[in-house]
Amino acid sequence: MSADPAAAVVKNRPLAIIAGAGDFPLQLASLAAASGRPVFIAALEGAAVPAAFGQADLQSYRLGQLGRLLEDLRRRDIADLVLIGSLPRPSFGALRPEASTLKYLPHFARAFRGGDDHLLRGVVAFFEGQGFTVHGPADVAPQMTAPIGPLGRKVASVAQRDLMTRGFQLLAALSPFDVGQAAILADHRVIAIEAAEGTDAMIRRVADLVASGRLRIAKGDGVLVKAPKDGQDLRVDMPAIGSETLRNVTAAGLSGIGLRAGRVLVGDAAALAKLADQSSLFVEGVPS
Amino acid sequence: MSADPAAAVVKNRPLAIIAGAGDFPLQLASLAAASGRPVFIAALEGAAVPAAFGQADLQSYRLGQLGRLLEDLRRRDIADLVLIGSLPRPSFGALRPEASTLKYLPHFARAFRGGDDHLLRGVVAFFEGQGFTVHGPADVAPQMTAPIGPLGRKVASVAQRDLMTRGFQLLAALSPFDVGQAAILADHRVIAIEAAEGTDAMIRRVADLVASGRLRIAKGDGVLVKAPKDGQDLRVDMPAIGSETLRNVTAAGLSGIGLRAGRVLVGDAAALAKLADQSSLFVEGVPS
Repeated sequence: MSADPAAAVVKNRPLAIIAGAGDFPLQLASLAAASGRPVFIAALEGAAVPAAFGQADLQSYRLGQLGRLLEDLRRRDIADLVLIGSLPRPSFGALRPEASTLKYLPHFARAFRGGDDHLLRGVVAFFEGQGFTVHGPADVAPQMTAPIGPLGRKVASVAQRDLMTRGFQLLAALSPFDVGQAAILADHRVIAIEAAEGTDAMIRRVADLVASGRLRIAKGDGVLVKAPKDGQDLRVDMPAIGSETLRNVTAAGLSGIGLRAGRVLVGDAAALAKLADQSSLFVEGVPS
Repeated sequence: MSADPAAAVVKNRPLAIIAGAGDFPLQLASLAAASGRPVFIAALEGAAVPAAFGQADLQSYRLGQLGRLLEDLRRRDIADLVLIGSLPRPSFGALRPEASTLKYLPHFARAFRGGDDHLLRGVVAFFEGQGFTVHGPADVAPQMTAPIGPLGRKVASVAQRDLMTRGFQLLAALSPFDVGQAAILADHRVIAIEAAEGTDAMIRRVADLVASGRLRIAKGDGVLVKAPKDGQDLRVDMPAIGSETLRNVTAAGLSGIGLRAGRVLVGDAAALAKLADQSSLFVEGVPS
């Protein structure tokens, strides 16, 4: 196995996709398979829906079957992994580990004692310690990230671009505090900043403020910006938007979305562009 | 009238308190009167409750009676004002101006076209343009602001103090973006940042995250920090906490509150200290 990650994404090497919930694992599986490389799906029970992967080579695993997963990967001579999709933060007690998984528990017991970032770092470190190379979805399928420029037909105005610029500056200022993946700006000011609640809850908060009359957002005003924090591990923790984000943004009366190009997952860009056009939203990738 | 604000707070000069809703106007009226200076209360209809001021010299005014208010102040030879208490942001159309107020409308029409900060600056500029001196509550009654150190018996631990320090650093980093009067930190990270929703809504958000199991806050963890933004006009827009804040903080399972000493209103400090002790919260003023 090569220790060089760049060499490890060589297309003909088999790739395991450790799949959680949502559309991203499906899109990645489809794009990786279309590129001709052998793909094995390790579907995490309770998160991924095996049937959605169609004819793919797939096995389901509980989190407590980590030992079995490692054995399967080695038997299949798979050294390259991508972890993608959402996973409700598991409780350590609910893992129900099989015998072959017990020896790995101390590692995860440590990883569980911290925030989500800490847990994710622990998961990456675990697989790397076991000799695997963990890739980001953008390494395998860069077309799943925000491209530079507008995703659909709508383009940000000068005023909307100014709000985006200010928004990205705000997120950069927050980054040393390990917070602030997204913010909403309108009326020349910052309306909402995301912390533990997540992007969708933040957008809904703005929708509620507007609905209750506590906040007015003029037509053409109101922009969501989203970007990774400095030091965020884009292999396992890339910020993402999807159709739900666009629906929430529309419901909140915002005019569009600014994303750090190449550093935010959009999944099926064509589908998102279509939804953006239908919703009269701009969705733009802005280079760092 | 002296142009020197320091001279203008001389105790024997009469003071007008333009009073909105809440306890702060009552406390200020009581403290100013106790210091021996003549106090006139201009109670804003729909916000201040005249009966609550007891035997004070008081007149009620609608916002549309600004002209009458100015005439009354001049007749009483009052040059010093404090504007204090909350006021629902009025709609310009609902002012119902009297004839003596009509000439001032263009000034306020401009002030209304902007955020709350802009409106408040417009109000201060208006009174100063009319020859009055606008004082902050802290100029008249510094005992209404957070003192240095703990307000009650409970003192922040080293870990809680670290969270406060990090919180104040975060608020300072946000200040150039004219946002971030408060934040909540727990588990070594930033949990919530206040923007347009206000401090109480932010605290309730954290309580909801905890109640829904999306966030765990250990006992003794979890700190609210509050401070003015750079350039905030502390004469008319000083951040404030009160008993409601303490109740929300308790409900969210936080351990205490850090305030910028001298720069956040606490109103009746003794009553708040008692409530802090009953709730086992620390409430500390931290010097800048």
